[in-house]
Amino acid sequence: MRATFMYGPGDVRVENVPDPRIVDPTDAVVRITLACVCGSDLHPYHSMAATDEGVPMGHEFIGVVEDTGSAVTGVKRGDFVVSPFAFSDNTCPICRDGFHTACPRGGWYGAGGVGGAQAEAVRVPQADGTLVKVPGDVDTAFLPSLLALSDVYLTGHHAAHMGRVEPGKTVTVIGDGAVGLSAVLASRRLGAERVILMGRHTSRTDLGREWGATDVVAERGEEGVAKVLDLTGGEGSHVVLEAVGLMPAYEQAYGVVRPGGIISRVGVPQYEEAPVGFGSLFGKNAGLTGGPAPVRAYIEQAIDDVLAVRINPGRVFDAEVGLDQVADAYKQMDSRSSLKVVVRP
Amino acid sequence: MRATFMYGPGDVRVENVPDPRIVDPTDAVVRITLACVCGSDLHPYHSMAATDEGVPMGHEFIGVVEDTGSAVTGVKRGDFVVSPFAFSDNTCPICRDGFHTACPRGGWYGAGGVGGAQAEAVRVPQADGTLVKVPGDVDTAFLPSLLALSDVYLTGHHAAHMGRVEPGKTVTVIGDGAVGLSAVLASRRLGAERVILMGRHTSRTDLGREWGATDVVAERGEEGVAKVLDLTGGEGSHVVLEAVGLMPAYEQAYGVVRPGGIISRVGVPQYEEAPVGFGSLFGKNAGLTGGPAPVRAYIEQAIDDVLAVRINPGRVFDAEVGLDQVADAYKQMDSRSSLKVVVRP
Repeated sequence: MRATFMYGPGDVRVENVPDPRIVDPTDAVVRITLACVCGSDLHPYHSMAATDEGVPMGHEFIGVVEDTGSAVTGVKRGDFVVSPFAFSDNTCPICRDGFHTACPRGGWYGAGGVGGAQAEAVRVPQADGTLVKVPGDVDTAFLPSLLALSDVYLTGHHAAHMGRVEPGKTVTVIGDGAVGLSAVLASRRLGAERVILMGRHTSRTDLGREWGATDVVAERGEEGVAKVLDLTGGEGSHVVLEAVGLMPAYEQAYGVVRPGGIISRVGVPQYEEAPVGFGSLFGKNAGLTGGPAPVRAYIEQAIDDVLAVRINPGRVFDAEVGLDQVADAYKQMDSRSSLKVVVRP
Repeated sequence: MRATFMYGPGDVRVENVPDPRIVDPTDAVVRITLACVCGSDLHPYHSMAATDEGVPMGHEFIGVVEDTGSAVTGVKRGDFVVSPFAFSDNTCPICRDGFHTACPRGGWYGAGGVGGAQAEAVRVPQADGTLVKVPGDVDTAFLPSLLALSDVYLTGHHAAHMGRVEPGKTVTVIGDGAVGLSAVLASRRLGAERVILMGRHTSRTDLGREWGATDVVAERGEEGVAKVLDLTGGEGSHVVLEAVGLMPAYEQAYGVVRPGGIISRVGVPQYEEAPVGFGSLFGKNAGLTGGPAPVRAYIEQAIDDVLAVRINPGRVFDAEVGLDQVADAYKQMDSRSSLKVVVRP
């Protein structure tokens, strides 16, 4: 089959590799219907160390179960499924807490002998815990929104959930990428009264407005912070959803958060150390939360919401390529000519 | 009157200064009955830049109102009051949120023209918002516990409150100082099922056990982290209350926190930057919260609890000095020969 590998910055290749097969009895093999490129895929695309062994790419997909290991009972050949971007057993105490991305038996696509999802098929470890069957005959019009549940929308939802967004709260979303826009949609779903979207790409912030952003702030840095403080009567935002992962976004976050408020991060941090002392978080009792979204915890409800047309998170996809053109998808997203690109094997 | 000033590391002096007097119509002057030395006073005691102008010291006190400005209506001459360690108006939106230490009209004793409380008397700005009258005739046996409400106990409570301690939770408290022990007491009051106290001073951890610590871990660093993980089935602690403020304590905190758990800090951080990325907080969705305790938000309930003998937080005081001996109090606390020292003017 064909699968995508990255060899270094800007170096994305589609190669022929052996078809995936069951390794552990808890595995399934899924034939991929749709995959896509993630904002987090752009981090290695910019800065990974070049390697002779390509890194398998892609972790978001919907598809059809092709084979299952002997221990798998929850899904069977022919089932149409959504996969969270991380696999997990969904039974351990950590999963029962709702933090599946830290499951001791869980892991990540594209690592540890598990392939990537920008491919024709993929092996799914812990298939019973991971894969969620979509009920009924699915209209193809729903496919992009179901694909969005694999990561992007539920990552935005996780940000809002961890930030304890609720009616009456003012929420500031930093970043107008697909996750930031999803965080706008999720915040309104959770009842946020006011959603300030910090972003400068009008075509994106327009979708943000459609999804419920009440204000858009194009300014960045100190100017952007001043604007948000101004919009919030000088007090700042109860909740800040940081959907970028770079230090300037983190700095904006603690600049605009209200005393006692919460910064919830879902952009994978491209830093390890950051300000947390008296001058940033501690002095105003600001909280910091977030991490890799435990999509599995939220996915069943979200499938219902998609199929009932209560949400349409697939609107973040504004382009599509065939698998052989996946390198173009990276280029389009890197140049921001596309927001998020579907990959059809 | 006599008042305490610090001029440099280890250099604490009691000096004669003019009596405090009303400056703003919202002020009160309080004659101090009891004050004390705070763990946070030891930070400048170790490392402040030497200065020719002494810094007024002390921010915890109980006392009797001696004078009030023309705008003060909530307390009057003769009232016996507890003061939070920070003053605030108790009416602004931030105070109404319960984060009085960030009140725009609030501030700190010993700064901005306001004296310290290790003194015979002190001017209290925003007296109506700040001072809380203790009802009835107060038995002197309650004085230490009432004094503990000015900072230490309610700082421990704030840690537990922000960490969302509740029945069923495992809590790890880092630090066996007076705040750490208070955090143990507060955690049990909030229903924590298990409280692991990390500390190595037996006389202190013994009080921690009396107050409800179910386990004591004397080891530090990696060894201490391993011990706590072992005690929690490898999963870590739902809540970690960090009552030290130094980087090794922060590192222990993210080492022992369970995925999805919360680190709540109340030790004033002696660092600005700290690990928060994938390898520390983000990867396991660990939250970070805490800051200067908005004691004012909790004090009325706590006064009731003290007078009804439901808590006895004054037990952290294990020594007393007269005001002229305040330098000895610092020495005793610095050498750990005393846990926390009362200063009687």
